[in-house]
Amino acid sequence: MRRAEILSVPGIPEVQAGDDLDGLIGDALVAADLALGDGDVLTLAHKIVSKAEGQVRRLADITPGEEALRYGEELSKDPRKVQAVLDESTRVVRAFKHPHATEGTMICEHRLGLISANAAVDESNTGGSDEVILLPKDPDASAQAMRDALQARFGAEIGVIITDTFGRPWRLGQVNVAIGLAGVPARINEAGGHDARGRELKVTEPAFADEVAAASGLVIGKAAQTPVVLFRGLDWPSTDDARGTDLIRAQSEDMFR
Amino acid sequence: MRRAEILSVPGIPEVQAGDDLDGLIGDALVAADLALGDGDVLTLAHKIVSKAEGQVRRLADITPGEEALRYGEELSKDPRKVQAVLDESTRVVRAFKHPHATEGTMICEHRLGLISANAAVDESNTGGSDEVILLPKDPDASAQAMRDALQARFGAEIGVIITDTFGRPWRLGQVNVAIGLAGVPARINEAGGHDARGRELKVTEPAFADEVAAASGLVIGKAAQTPVVLFRGLDWPSTDDARGTDLIRAQSEDMFR
Repeated sequence: MRRAEILSVPGIPEVQAGDDLDGLIGDALVAADLALGDGDVLTLAHKIVSKAEGQVRRLADITPGEEALRYGEELSKDPRKVQAVLDESTRVVRAFKHPHATEGTMICEHRLGLISANAAVDESNTGGSDEVILLPKDPDASAQAMRDALQARFGAEIGVIITDTFGRPWRLGQVNVAIGLAGVPARINEAGGHDARGRELKVTEPAFADEVAAASGLVIGKAAQTPVVLFRGLDWPSTDDARGTDLIRAQSEDMFR
Repeated sequence: MRRAEILSVPGIPEVQAGDDLDGLIGDALVAADLALGDGDVLTLAHKIVSKAEGQVRRLADITPGEEALRYGEELSKDPRKVQAVLDESTRVVRAFKHPHATEGTMICEHRLGLISANAAVDESNTGGSDEVILLPKDPDASAQAMRDALQARFGAEIGVIITDTFGRPWRLGQVNVAIGLAGVPARINEAGGHDARGRELKVTEPAFADEVAAASGLVIGKAAQTPVVLFRGLDWPSTDDARGTDLIRAQSEDMFR
């Protein structure tokens, strides 16, 4: 029997720019009697990483350009927010406003390659209502720095996944996905294996990091201050070269488009 | 601290048409000392449900029509498999063969509304290599029947989710999604709530059933005979009217398309 545990880590304070995030998380783990051990995986909601890194923009500091003003009009969005979205994007895949919505949505390709609503620029849960939160500059590097610091502190080999909450084509409701990772594989290739009865399996690549990210949502209340989730008992091959972008389909290969 | 457990249920035998699936699963739970309690959620890989219900077709019994022969040629696919896919579909969204792939893929809208590869018609892991497995006829009804039987046996209020493994637009690797459910909500609406600091939250609807489905993949080895996963300690509002189709975006509302 395989058994894994999902634990929300209590006691993470509101994070500010410049905070020592690995220190805060390490202290919270110790206080909750959750010293890390080999094989543990931590998920971090990207917002606390972005905040600690100062990846926050004050709307008052943003001057919308012509394109942002046009989208703002069309979508009933604050053009300064639109400008922040455009600044994070390499292209706008689609912009749309439902008749009953108060505000439209832009589906964008983020500079990291991720396709998501509003280029993952977030308004909720910020320190002030006049700010937006961007993704970390390099989520894999952020995950790796967190992994290094916590491994040194706890003397254990762990994995770290930075998550964001995404809507999905074809399916309703949001799930958390992995945008940056360290130690853990993005996908686990089961190609060429055999099933329990010895028959050859078709190529299967469970998106391990996305499975963990989605599972983290099960113990995170949006209204609660629980951006860090600890997984114990998962079975994963340690790797030093996986990247969050390993989960992004090349446009040329995306037959779902 | 929120704590949840994910356990793969050992001892589920190879399932045959006509098997008493709730009896098999109940017996496996008892044998593993996992008697169900209030709030437990079970995920079932749809294949065991489909097999028990006889939702399996022998290729030898299928005569491909003209459309199936055409796709078969174009995609290097067995036209009898293509016919099985077409019979499950209301439309072919896209058909595509990568230059290096041995066989193409058809992205189809299944009669249940799901958009997936090959209309969720599956070849791997069947009892014989000349068969394909379809989705259950009515996955919500199958989940409800399982829920009723196991609730009666264990005297506990539980949730049941039937899953399939899907590829995804824009993202690589597969995750399990919920195609049928009973007792548990498809999505949990957090609209109108407030965060830990009293600020109003934007509309957020975690796709609870899909989060659970994705998490089930963390303890299922494709090569192992572990199609049933037990979740303990999840926090979910019991409901009698959620459906798997609550996770499917109406085409008219799908701005990701």
